[in-house]
Amino acid sequence: MMKAAIFVEPGRIVLDDKPIPNVGPNDALIRVTTTTICGTDVHILKGEYPVARGLTIGHEPVGIIEKLGANVAGYQEGQRVIAGAICPSGYSHACLDGLHSQDGGSCRHGLKALGGWRFGNTIDGAQAEFLLVPDAMANLALVPDNLTDEQVLMCPDIMSTGFAGAESGNIKIGDSVAIFAQGPIGLCATAGAKLRGATTIIAIETVPRRMEMARQLGANFVIDYRKTEPVKEIMRITQGRGVDVAIEALGLQSTFENCLRALKPGGTLSSLGVYSEDLIIPLDAFHAGLGDNKIITSLCPGGKERMRRLMNVIESERIDLKALITHHYSLDQIEDAYELFANQSDGVLKIAITPN
Amino acid sequence: MMKAAIFVEPGRIVLDDKPIPNVGPNDALIRVTTTTICGTDVHILKGEYPVARGLTIGHEPVGIIEKLGANVAGYQEGQRVIAGAICPSGYSHACLDGLHSQDGGSCRHGLKALGGWRFGNTIDGAQAEFLLVPDAMANLALVPDNLTDEQVLMCPDIMSTGFAGAESGNIKIGDSVAIFAQGPIGLCATAGAKLRGATTIIAIETVPRRMEMARQLGANFVIDYRKTEPVKEIMRITQGRGVDVAIEALGLQSTFENCLRALKPGGTLSSLGVYSEDLIIPLDAFHAGLGDNKIITSLCPGGKERMRRLMNVIESERIDLKALITHHYSLDQIEDAYELFANQSDGVLKIAITPN
Amino acid sequence: MMKAAIFVEPGRIVLDDKPIPNVGPNDALIRVTTTTICGTDVHILKGEYPVARGLTIGHEPVGIIEKLGANVAGYQEGQRVIAGAICPSGYSHACLDGLHSQDGGSCRHGLKALGGWRFGNTIDGAQAEFLLVPDAMANLALVPDNLTDEQVLMCPDIMSTGFAGAESGNIKIGDSVAIFAQGPIGLCATAGAKLRGATTIIAIETVPRRMEMARQLGANFVIDYRKTEPVKEIMRITQGRGVDVAIEALGLQSTFENCLRALKPGGTLSSLGVYSEDLIIPLDAFHAGLGDNKIITSLCPGGKERMRRLMNVIESERIDLKALITHHYSLDQIEDAYELFANQSDGVLKIAITPN
Amino acid sequence: MMKAAIFVEPGRIVLDDKPIPNVGPNDALIRVTTTTICGTDVHILKGEYPVARGLTIGHEPVGIIEKLGANVAGYQEGQRVIAGAICPSGYSHACLDGLHSQDGGSCRHGLKALGGWRFGNTIDGAQAEFLLVPDAMANLALVPDNLTDEQVLMCPDIMSTGFAGAESGNIKIGDSVAIFAQGPIGLCATAGAKLRGATTIIAIETVPRRMEMARQLGANFVIDYRKTEPVKEIMRITQGRGVDVAIEALGLQSTFENCLRALKPGGTLSSLGVYSEDLIIPLDAFHAGLGDNKIITSLCPGGKERMRRLMNVIESERIDLKALITHHYSLDQIEDAYELFANQSDGVLKIAITPN
Repeated sequence: MMKAAIFVEPGRIVLDDKPIPNVGPNDALIRVTTTTICGTDVHILKGEYPVARGLTIGHEPVGIIEKLGANVAGYQEGQRVIAGAICPSGYSHACLDGLHSQDGGSCRHGLKALGGWRFGNTIDGAQAEFLLVPDAMANLALVPDNLTDEQVLMCPDIMSTGFAGAESGNIKIGDSVAIFAQGPIGLCATAGAKLRGATTIIAIETVPRRMEMARQLGANFVIDYRKTEPVKEIMRITQGRGVDVAIEALGLQSTFENCLRALKPGGTLSSLGVYSEDLIIPLDAFHAGLGDNKIITSLCPGGKERMRRLMNVIESERIDLKALITHHYSLDQIEDAYELFANQSDGVLKIAITPN
Repeated sequence: MMKAAIFVEPGRIVLDDKPIPNVGPNDALIRVTTTTICGTDVHILKGEYPVARGLTIGHEPVGIIEKLGANVAGYQEGQRVIAGAICPSGYSHACLDGLHSQDGGSCRHGLKALGGWRFGNTIDGAQAEFLLVPDAMANLALVPDNLTDEQVLMCPDIMSTGFAGAESGNIKIGDSVAIFAQGPIGLCATAGAKLRGATTIIAIETVPRRMEMARQLGANFVIDYRKTEPVKEIMRITQGRGVDVAIEALGLQSTFENCLRALKPGGTLSSLGVYSEDLIIPLDAFHAGLGDNKIITSLCPGGKERMRRLMNVIESERIDLKALITHHYSLDQIEDAYELFANQSDGVLKIAITPN
Repeated sequence: MMKAAIFVEPGRIVLDDKPIPNVGPNDALIRVTTTTICGTDVHILKGEYPVARGLTIGHEPVGIIEKLGANVAGYQEGQRVIAGAICPSGYSHACLDGLHSQDGGSCRHGLKALGGWRFGNTIDGAQAEFLLVPDAMANLALVPDNLTDEQVLMCPDIMSTGFAGAESGNIKIGDSVAIFAQGPIGLCATAGAKLRGATTIIAIETVPRRMEMARQLGANFVIDYRKTEPVKEIMRITQGRGVDVAIEALGLQSTFENCLRALKPGGTLSSLGVYSEDLIIPLDAFHAGLGDNKIITSLCPGGKERMRRLMNVIESERIDLKALITHHYSLDQIEDAYELFANQSDGVLKIAITPN
Repeated sequence: MMKAAIFVEPGRIVLDDKPIPNVGPNDALIRVTTTTICGTDVHILKGEYPVARGLTIGHEPVGIIEKLGANVAGYQEGQRVIAGAICPSGYSHACLDGLHSQDGGSCRHGLKALGGWRFGNTIDGAQAEFLLVPDAMANLALVPDNLTDEQVLMCPDIMSTGFAGAESGNIKIGDSVAIFAQGPIGLCATAGAKLRGATTIIAIETVPRRMEMARQLGANFVIDYRKTEPVKEIMRITQGRGVDVAIEALGLQSTFENCLRALKPGGTLSSLGVYSEDLIIPLDAFHAGLGDNKIITSLCPGGKERMRRLMNVIESERIDLKALITHHYSLDQIEDAYELFANQSDGVLKIAITPN
């Protein structure tokens, strides 16, 4: 048996015992050494995103290979690995078409979309002592010896997602980019915008610690939206041009709409937020459909190659995300960790959770 | 003096006398030989799209060079030319960044966006005996001798716009594409989808003549949305996958929303319609922002190179748009032509208008 | 035991008996119903492309699923399928990076590159009664009931390769494209150029039957290079502009060089040929490196999604490649078929080979 | 009259008197305040790149607007500006197709290609007291007050060219990139690779000062090719994968060939060098044409929007290229400056030249 954080009902994720999973031929069993809680997990906790009762939550694993399935070649037990939040199979039509995140998507039918997101969504997740990784050969990425668990803990989800915001926006050298909201994902989007060569990077936030972090990760300008009307300020900074790319990193109508209004003609809204209501596109902000604009949504890219690249970014010391880890908890204390994280208490950004 | 169709006030476009324009150093004066009325002109007529009183309407010219400005080289008076509805200057920041349609855009301020759209919007248009073409060296495209006026009449706007719907969707060989509405622009989008290599082309319409035309221009399937629920039918045709690209060619909430619902995970909504109200993005159709979807709007590409390419398409006989011209009027009868076109009477698709 | 066409030594491919392969957990065994010989097989026959002695040749299978590996889900025995010449695993770093054709590539070390090409290269191939398909879930593509074996026989290799020439060239609507050589692959490139929207399609050949076929498949102009200097003629046709894209479909210095010389400034050379000697880039044809040109090589894209799309093209009746099949042989006669094909006798384009 | 550096004959560029140019309606006359010498100018000096006798050399101007043509709007005399080495007109077919660098290219006919390169090539250049800028509205870019002449002196050519090497390679976050040669352009390519998000950046050089500069501008690894075989070392660094992108920044067969050999399957060779001999593509390094490789050449992008973006990069302090300026000369001493630069004496990288 092992300990696992289990969704019981809306409002309750509890630590409980569960059998250690059996290892199928293409699977790998990972002994989790570090994991964390994501904003999406809080949506699950609150019942806003539905998952099966009894499911183990969590999709951000660092761990040691405990056991390999009979068909899994190229790895050895005892190696330290990560796996992305999204686990593409590699063999689906979507994967073979280059859409790895939408693998096997049954996206047609409401929110249970997201074909490739399995951990803590359609199969047991990473907030546990052990994690079963499906399609292991596509998903296990070796962690270089010189990187700690905490250095790579952001790779499986928020770093991959945040960077995708910059990548989907097709940011070019010299671009101006506005990033609305500087939570963990928004901060990674800011770092991603810098990595892609944006040189006018405008972060919008109000929490002082996050505003400061935004500056450290690459923002040239940080707007406190409680003090300054952000669209007007963006227009001032860009001398009336608007930004080439606006990144939505919160999931609200107000930020989505401000993104649209901050864009130059021909600009791109790169959307990362998980929305919980219908969105409205104001006619004027959309130029009645004639502005040559793009709205692009991105789900966290996964797979071992994506993980390898992200760890390479960490290894190159071009960006340091350790500072995002503001708290440490043991798995035994995970209910407290959820309490802290769900309430955004004590300036929390991300919590490192260690099973023992 | 010359005759011109002039916007007087909402509800009234009248034929009146106006001075023949003076030719500035970078301009060309064109004697219009054939022009037409666009759906946008009807928006202007109804007062839904505001333009200055006294403006000459129309943005789809075929004509003969009457006079060239002092700096205009590479052309001769007497040559037959077209100019695109959108006239890029070539020298604006937007043009030099590859965004020719949003040239000089003051798109920030409501609907008077559309930097590059000048004819019949910010300067006098083509429904007149003479038309002044600004930045002539960027905009005059010679018509090959073997093409008639009517063969190239769709190039300045609807062919360019419709094809842009297919191009912005980045349609690939073997794609499935749904095009919602088969008015002149939707029909051109259908033809464009075929030209780009889509092989499951699904047109949605209800007017029999348009449904038949859709089939001629490339649709493999035509859905009468009054008889069959289109999204369900698209899912049936694509065996539950959804389409790679959905093209909106009407400008309504219902078609916009159906486009979203018809998409595969990772699919692209290519929007051509001119909307007149705020749009709603339903949460489920948007997969809460997690479907790796794109929404892309396109304004009609212009400039002499675009026109050259479109005329090359016509010349290659890969597509014949003459059948879209259902009626012929003289410029003297243009008020009647507006009447017919605004009411979509007599199965009208496009009207060829000849100044004399 | 089964019959198979086996490479014995340079100059000798013979039909011999071989054990029917064992089926591993991720494999599928296919009873081959139709296959064919490729130009690459002739390179193998002549010893110009080295493979192991005893290897079964051939990489273009149509067949029936005889047996599925223990882990293979989503298929049933008795279904009719094809598999691409290139069999991506789906789980390699290359696949997860979108480079499915270069899967596992050990391309560093000379000609045994081509990571993803396994059939008749690194594992037994399709010119046999049975074929073992590795990574079956990524590679088996169901053939629609309404398509015959011969209709889909070109999908595994030459259709996929030829179309890739058009796709890698990023052909746009209204482009001018020259395709040098109209063998089976060049003909498919011509068809692909048409499918992508090129409207000035210029094929270069000298064999009358191939010239005629080029016209049928989409060429607007066909140049007999023995009668007319092709680059000069291309410049005449394009009024001195040069082509947007030139496709090399033979693998010789002369065609490679003519492609370069036929390009417009900023144009793309899309190379499909398998070369057997060092290539020379003439300084002037390369504009000393200052022409903003691209040279792009493409290996045949594989995988079940590619096959599905190609069969959809066939099903849409947008293109008919059956006419490429000029001869029929049984597997028993395969040595004669090689004789015919290697000598390009009797106007042969492609030979359909049926195991019984 | 004004002073200007004039090409007299191979081996001789001399300072001489010349009339101040007349200002045509679309031109601007610039009083040059700072300029520099480019490697291409040395090719001209040596007679390797032919220009007309009597031509003023130089294509890297910083200056003050002295006089504006009658049609030039949006600028004022007395403003400080730069113009790119390549001056697109904006109105050519190439510009309207997005190929601004190949504007009006008569690239068909040998080395006098390079449509858009006019200064010091087809019209008088910048090594003079005054410079006439054609198509001024497309080419004049205002210098922000807080940037010095020397800070923006690299924008017109080497920064734009070097960055284009990174951009044409479509470098992605986490890519590995090798840059062969670290002269001024190679150093800018290294900086560009960093700006685009490459995290394994490998510079190849042998001059210590350049090696050190490479490290400062972003190289994680610097290989002295006289001490270490670079391809082998690149394979070691990338653990046998090869680089995603290799940038050629010298113009020699050896560096071109090493680029090819350093690439991963599917990798891109981004070529910036000006070659002076035919190039050879070795069969094995090209994988016989089957490696899914790209070879892309880039000419320096110009125009006012490019210049604006590059100055924004400088202003953001993301990169400081002032250190490339190793020497200062007055225009009166330009013959000495050529002597120094042509001989690469005294560790010279770039020379700032001030007319008075």
